[in-house]
Formats: sequence, C-alpha cells, structure tokens
Amino acid sequence: MSSNRPAAVVLLSGGLDSATTLAIASDEGYDCHALSFSYGQRHEIELAAADRVARQLDVRSHRTVRIDVDGFDDLSTSALTGHQRVPKDRDATQRENGIPSTYVPARNTIFLSYGLALAELIGARDMFIGANAVDYSGYPDCRPAYLSAFERMANLATKAAVEGATIRIHAPLIDWPKTKIIRKGLDLGVDYGQTHSCYDPDPEGRACGRCDSCLIRRDAFAALGMPDPGR
Amino acid sequence: MSSNRPAAVVLLSGGLDSATTLAIASDEGYDCHALSFSYGQRHEIELAAADRVARQLDVRSHRTVRIDVDGFDDLSTSALTGHQRVPKDRDATQRENGIPSTYVPARNTIFLSYGLALAELIGARDMFIGANAVDYSGYPDCRPAYLSAFERMANLATKAAVEGATIRIHAPLIDWPKTKIIRKGLDLGVDYGQTHSCYDPDPEGRACGRCDSCLIRRDAFAALGMPDPGR
Repeated sequence: MSSNRPAAVVLLSGGLDSATTLAIASDEGYDCHALSFSYGQRHEIELAAADRVARQLDVRSHRTVRIDVDGFDDLSTSALTGHQRVPKDRDATQRENGIPSTYVPARNTIFLSYGLALAELIGARDMFIGANAVDYSGYPDCRPAYLSAFERMANLATKAAVEGATIRIHAPLIDWPKTKIIRKGLDLGVDYGQTHSCYDPDPEGRACGRCDSCLIRRDAFAALGMPDPGR
Repeated sequence: MSSNRPAAVVLLSGGLDSATTLAIASDEGYDCHALSFSYGQRHEIELAAADRVARQLDVRSHRTVRIDVDGFDDLSTSALTGHQRVPKDRDATQRENGIPSTYVPARNTIFLSYGLALAELIGARDMFIGANAVDYSGYPDCRPAYLSAFERMANLATKAAVEGATIRIHAPLIDWPKTKIIRKGLDLGVDYGQTHSCYDPDPEGRACGRCDSCLIRRDAFAALGMPDPGR
C-alpha cells in the first residue's frame, strides 16, 4: 500500500495524550509512523496499549526502541522506572508543585533524537509529540521553549537538514487542558478504552486510580460528564 | 575512592579523536565518566578499543549503551552499520566532498542525548565530544553551529538546568588538524596503539588501511614522521 500523504513520526506512549496526538496527525493528513520506547519503566503495560492504539488508528508503521538501561542503572532512580514510590492521592495544587518524582532525565530529548533519526530514514519532515505544559507543568522537556530549541538543533543535525529539508516538531496539545484533549480525541474517533496512563498499574495492568496521571484523567472525564473508559 | 574534581561525561568511541578528547578532559581537571555506544556498526571492535582507552586513561566510570537497532533496521543503510560498502583509497579531495556514506542519521544527537541523561544522573555539568569539523567536514552533526544548538537545547531540557546548572558541550578538537590532535595526545600520554579508527576492520580487528579514517590517520602520523601505531 503506498500513499501520497506526507510521512510523519509520532511518538506514541500508549497514553491518552499521545493517542490523541496520533489521531490529530492522521486527521491533518499525515501518514503516521509511530515510535514507542521501552526503557525499564514500571509500565511495560503501556507498550501493549501503544500497540492497540497504533492498530486502532491505522498507522503506517510502528517501531518500539528498547533502550538499554543496564549501562544506565541510575535511570531507575525515577519513580517511573522502578525504585521510588509513585506519589498517590495528590490534589491539583500538589500535582502542580515543582518537578515530579516521575521525571526521567533527558527522556524527551532521547525520544525525540530517535524520532529525528527515524524521520531522516523515512524521509519525514514532521514529528509529533504529545507534550503538554498544562497538566505536567513540572517537566522541563514539555515546555514550548524546550521544544523550539530541539527543533532548531534538529535543523542543524542531519543530512536532510543540510540538503534543505525543514524539520518541524508539532506539539498540538502543548497548551490544552485535559478536557479539550479528550473532546478532540473523541471527535476523531480515539477509543480511550485502549489507552493506558497509570504510573503504577497492578500486575494485571489495571490502573491504580490514585497516581497523578490517573487523577488528572479521572477529573477530566468527570468534568465532561463521563466515566474514564481507560484501563 | 572519592574526588573533588568536577565530573564530566566524555563520549568515547575508542578512536583517535575521542581518546585524545578524554585525555584533554582529564588534563583539564575533570573526573571523567566515559560513555560508549554499540549500535550495530561493523566495528564492534571499536568497543574493545574504548575499553582499553578508558582503562589506560583511568576514567572514573565507563558505560556502554547498546542501542537497539532491531526496531530500526534502516539505520543499517549507512556504510558504518553494515549494508553498504565502505569507500576505499579516496584522496583528500574526494574525502572532503559532501556527506560521507558513513554518515549515520542523527548519531551525535542520540549520543549526546544519552550523555545529557548521564550528566544529570551523576551531577556533571560538562560533556566532551571528539567532534572535528576539519577531517570530517561532511558530517552535519560535527559542526560548531550544531553543537551550540545542542547546548542551548540541553540547557532547557533537564531538571538540573531548570535548577540553575549550566551544561557545557566541549569539543576541544573541533577545528584542529589531525596532526595537532595527535601531538596533543602524545603530550598527554595517549597510547594510540590502543585506539581503533578503521571503518572496515578484518575479523581479527586489524585496520584495513584504505578507508577514509585509516588514510587520514596514516597521513597525519606520516606528517609527524612516525608510523601509525594503531590497530
């Protein structure tokens, strides 16, 4: 199957934001190549969600890069990768206070760097990331200034750039509240029952319902008058 | 063993340039944490050289990140990673003409991104890379403008940066001819017999003597009136 649509690389975690971002990229006319990462996080379950979402939204390709953390044990100091407790039951004020313990050093920089390599390999000039600076204001690498700086760097980094291609980093959700993200995704046919956002699922993959990510989702669906269909 | 010297991350391929860069970083007073990468290149032999160099120059730590190329088969389109012939017997004019076939998409961006993560984990504010824009003028990600753009991005990317740490990317060899690099390394006690630069070694790890990298080394040692002690 070939396509005349321009190719785009879409970073896909399997969570609500990246699923919506993928749907937006597809709706904007891009032929989407999804890219997921396994990096020793607690939630390998997310990768199964990424597979489901990629299938549901009919991507052109889906690759998962396994990031070796053996040489990098210290990455596991983050709550997201295993050795710290995930904070629970925090209200909105607590959630917005500072850099979360779920911060992983240079994560988006590493992810976007692989995305840049893939973009060059498949001839894509567009990359999509579900970064959001509203609900997760504490993550330095979700800020617009960071993403702009990455884009400037990317446009000096590759053979494609030297030969005249302009790489664009799209972060369509960057300043959207969660309710707007969900409404947009529902309009575009995203099945949020296939997504997974919990930082601390049980062994069967069920969401804890109490971490920041679960609470932000729950509050947003509640504000829209519906239950969270996620796992 | 503890140290009061500031920590630095040094990207170490096991080649002549990165070995010299490591010696310079150490001479400048940094406690060096070497970082090497395995990414399906023909020259896994380089990693053995990186180990030898790291030991010879007494680094504080040495990590090797194995970059998964299974999800990224197309990386192997580069001559460096296996599926193309390495150009041989090119003279200096041919070597300087355009982007080499040994270009690997976004390689330095991926390497520096891991370096940035490691820097944050160990509290380092300094990163060293043996990038050189003289002998390898064709690589987009060896240019000063690229490295400056990466540095600007890095200073927006991390928790450490948000908290006030300034990341510096050092590329001390950036505008040095190979002869100057070798003289400096010899002054600092680098054993170039431990390094490996060949793009296309035989199965026993012996240099081919004919690829760009071998020829550049050979010419430089010859200009200094000595044989290349490398493998």
